[in-house]
Amino acid sequence: MKVCLIISYDGTNYNGWQKQNISQNGKMAIQNVVDDALTLVYKSKIETIGASRTDAGVHALNQVVIYDVNSTLPVEKIAIILNQKLPKDIRIMKSFQVDNDFHPRYMCKNKTYEYNIYCGETLNPLYRNFVLHKKETLNIDVMNEACKLLIGEHDFKGFSNVSDVKSTVREIYLCEFSQNKDFITFKICGSGFLYNMVRIIVATLMDIGTGRKDVSVIKEILTTGNRNLASATAKGHPLNLVDVKY
Amino acid sequence: MKVCLIISYDGTNYNGWQKQNISQNGKMAIQNVVDDALTLVYKSKIETIGASRTDAGVHALNQVVIYDVNSTLPVEKIAIILNQKLPKDIRIMKSFQVDNDFHPRYMCKNKTYEYNIYCGETLNPLYRNFVLHKKETLNIDVMNEACKLLIGEHDFKGFSNVSDVKSTVREIYLCEFSQNKDFITFKICGSGFLYNMVRIIVATLMDIGTGRKDVSVIKEILTTGNRNLASATAKGHPLNLVDVKY
Repeated sequence: MKVCLIISYDGTNYNGWQKQNISQNGKMAIQNVVDDALTLVYKSKIETIGASRTDAGVHALNQVVIYDVNSTLPVEKIAIILNQKLPKDIRIMKSFQVDNDFHPRYMCKNKTYEYNIYCGETLNPLYRNFVLHKKETLNIDVMNEACKLLIGEHDFKGFSNVSDVKSTVREIYLCEFSQNKDFITFKICGSGFLYNMVRIIVATLMDIGTGRKDVSVIKEILTTGNRNLASATAKGHPLNLVDVKY
Repeated sequence: MKVCLIISYDGTNYNGWQKQNISQNGKMAIQNVVDDALTLVYKSKIETIGASRTDAGVHALNQVVIYDVNSTLPVEKIAIILNQKLPKDIRIMKSFQVDNDFHPRYMCKNKTYEYNIYCGETLNPLYRNFVLHKKETLNIDVMNEACKLLIGEHDFKGFSNVSDVKSTVREIYLCEFSQNKDFITFKICGSGFLYNMVRIIVATLMDIGTGRKDVSVIKEILTTGNRNLASATAKGHPLNLVDVKY
């Protein structure tokens, strides 16, 4: 039987989603914690597959995770049982059965991420683990102009930190900034994302928003694939995987 | 010179505002941390006075704090200097000079608190330290009917956990629940609040909202001052001191 879990987590105290053999900086991966809890519940070794390998400090509202199991435990109760075993910063929102051929990565149509920014004087400390405090003024209009250039199918090699993937071509369906007083949210939806791609895109767009870079740099990076033209990877803690669609 | 600080804090890792001589459950009071940072900055012992003694786990968006000091340090820069010394969960939003006779408690006109509740199936873990997860359905209309009975000047002895104060009479100016999808916010503004008063009021109102108590209990508690008629003190972590007015 193939079971699907929808998981929300506060990534602050973890070293990202992807399973690791040893803890790094004293932090475990979220997948380790979930797999251990599942193994405890089923009393047999369970190994999950997640839709997105979120980085250290990155959060998820709707991570999609599957595993195979032979069990008579009612699948819709697994969420409740697991939540009793899991730490409070990882919550199973739903558990349900899926077709045996379902794969959370290969069958994914699109993923949506949000990146939260605060441009005021002093950030409310309640938001410190979820929001980037950017003290410079950002020109939303100019950033949204640059966003439009990213929409569509492009080679995003220059917006990535790895090159060992088959193809660096991805399609972006939605890419925009919105503002509510001193809070700015960047939302991006695409067919898939390369390693660190969202964070490099948002960093580059913010440099365009401050005037440090020109809008034209986007086309240059897409054409040349030159990572050095894009900005340094932005911090992970303001990033949130909000949706995965199939 | 008398200096006023506006402080925001995430109370999760502290044992409330009020200074304590020894840490309890391994947690310090926020006032200890602020006083220590001020003493470090001015190189002479500073003792603050806060507007509200928030309990363990309670947060503040705008705590008002004063202290006396002889110093040539520019007062408006104190916020920036202090924030470099303070942990990230305590932030000085503003620092400015006030009249020598200003007192944050005695001169306070009113204080506003908010209490955050989530009534959905599973709470987003990002909110776990700021929001109460209430799985029962709450009848907002009935709770707001009960709220109206609290508005005005009353003896709130029955809604308090201590009796060693001169007067237990307080005036409530605003008291209401509002709902946004699965999130419910209780907002209360009053001349002042007795020990645990907001948390006992909100607990009693929630018991009215589930049907466990009748609206009429409010009048009974106000008339008799009988603490046993009110509900057990609600959890502290969903409470936030949002405003103090002078």
